[in-house]
Amino acid sequence: MLALYFDGQPTIKELPRPEPGPGEVLVSVHLAGICGTDLQVLKGYHGFTGVMGHEFVGQVAAPPDSPWLGQRVVGEINLGCGACDLCRRGLAGHCRQRRVLGLKNHDGAFAHYLTLPAANLHAVPSQVPDVLAVFTEPLAAALRVLETVDVSPGARVLVVGDGSLGLQISWVLSLTGAEIHLAGHHPEHLALARPRGVATFLSDDLLPGNYDLVVEASGSPTGLELALTRVRPRGTVVMKSTYVGRYPLDPAALVVPEVNLVGCRCGPFADALRLLREGRVDPRPLIHRTFPLSRGLEALAWAQRPGVLKVLLDCREAD
Amino acid sequence: MLALYFDGQPTIKELPRPEPGPGEVLVSVHLAGICGTDLQVLKGYHGFTGVMGHEFVGQVAAPPDSPWLGQRVVGEINLGCGACDLCRRGLAGHCRQRRVLGLKNHDGAFAHYLTLPAANLHAVPSQVPDVLAVFTEPLAAALRVLETVDVSPGARVLVVGDGSLGLQISWVLSLTGAEIHLAGHHPEHLALARPRGVATFLSDDLLPGNYDLVVEASGSPTGLELALTRVRPRGTVVMKSTYVGRYPLDPAALVVPEVNLVGCRCGPFADALRLLREGRVDPRPLIHRTFPLSRGLEALAWAQRPGVLKVLLDCREAD
Repeated sequence: MLALYFDGQPTIKELPRPEPGPGEVLVSVHLAGICGTDLQVLKGYHGFTGVMGHEFVGQVAAPPDSPWLGQRVVGEINLGCGACDLCRRGLAGHCRQRRVLGLKNHDGAFAHYLTLPAANLHAVPSQVPDVLAVFTEPLAAALRVLETVDVSPGARVLVVGDGSLGLQISWVLSLTGAEIHLAGHHPEHLALARPRGVATFLSDDLLPGNYDLVVEASGSPTGLELALTRVRPRGTVVMKSTYVGRYPLDPAALVVPEVNLVGCRCGPFADALRLLREGRVDPRPLIHRTFPLSRGLEALAWAQRPGVLKVLLDCREAD
Repeated sequence: MLALYFDGQPTIKELPRPEPGPGEVLVSVHLAGICGTDLQVLKGYHGFTGVMGHEFVGQVAAPPDSPWLGQRVVGEINLGCGACDLCRRGLAGHCRQRRVLGLKNHDGAFAHYLTLPAANLHAVPSQVPDVLAVFTEPLAAALRVLETVDVSPGARVLVVGDGSLGLQISWVLSLTGAEIHLAGHHPEHLALARPRGVATFLSDDLLPGNYDLVVEASGSPTGLELALTRVRPRGTVVMKSTYVGRYPLDPAALVVPEVNLVGCRCGPFADALRLLREGRVDPRPLIHRTFPLSRGLEALAWAQRPGVLKVLLDCREAD
């Protein structure tokens, strides 16, 4: 099968079709999305070697006796060991021996086929086409903000970062009825949030604020700096994005105003699929281009262009 | 009156007795405690100029028509403006125009007399002698940890730092029935926690951990580093101590394990007084020495010696 493989450099190469292990299925990948984390993999994040990619929708192709056979699916990306204290507490996503699809010790989705435990799968409702379902993983990550902190309609919320993730976060936050502001550097991206009732600002124009909640989704130290200067005393800053490099944290900036800085990562797939099925979120405006898998290197280069939101890979074997 | 005044250098000097403004009372100070924050003032923290000190117990001496006259009191240290959005939300302690006793735009407790709004006062029960009541403010700060995060008996908790604050935090946490560990550098301080059922460790000997909650009370970047490497995924790190200098925060250390890093500062005086009255906490073993106010400079020098816990000042006018 064809695959986009990384071992210090990304390459397109032929690999043997993977064999599903016990409890696993083989998925024929239809569409896959390139995420900011994939671009960090190119810079050495995680020290990952293998087939890249973790956002996908596909169809279960094996084993023949699987109850999932033939079903269209998306899949959660963390593979816990199943035996440690964290897995036994239901925190398999935080298992210290975990593998992560396309990010850590498990080949990913930029290929004709991938394997995942059947327990990681979610069936895609027939009303949700592939081009929507491929956003399940990032939309779930956006929804994780609402599992991390309660947002009431009376809240004033700022999202920092107008990339693909920041926009999806602003959309799901707007479902709460709270007052949502989005700050970023790209007028054409900010425009995608306004139809959802989100007020938008160029970051440099953002007034001093007093936000109950700030979500940092810019993936930059300046974004975290903006967040910490705009949150109100006893407010919460949710960190969604990682980046290589350190933020010089002033302890007094947390202790004196009693601010809460909380990390959040992967989210609820079932909720994301429901919102997609009901049309309450439609990420299609985020798509800039779709490339066939065979042109994966071109797709990666495109995804790194300034101002580009989502680039998809068509991974069907007939491409 | 005599006062320990700071304007770049600490000096003992004669000052006019302060006049209570509208809504304020004059307090004749009995005892005052030297806190780590006072030592930071000596290094330029807050850029404070004025009479130092914020931990005290005393007796209301004026105005003559005050219902508080003659009462033995302790007092909350934050003076809000009373008019801003934060004050109106009940967050006067976070008022952006706030003054703080002995720390910001309001003369403090290392003097024969201080002034405070009557609204800041708490009556000291007759069963609580001055030598206990003077710990109300730091004990309340320790109790703030339990307002910030829920601690159940099933929790595994680590306190980092065996100074006066770290010890008081370990004591109040031990009231919850949770498993409390305390890490520090001073065997003779750690020994003060063990009678309360706290397990103690020299910081360098602390094993890799998996704590639900870590409280950083060491006031050092190495303490925060220890906290972030010992907290479990989805656990909480409470930051109690500020320090001059920055901590090089790796965003992935919060985002990937979904850790919660939360600042906490001043706490509930009424709860602290109740615990002192009931004898459930007895901070007297923390006292290393008590100096008369006239020897305040010597007291400050003593408080800066390595391994010294609490130094008190006897501020009674007859000293």
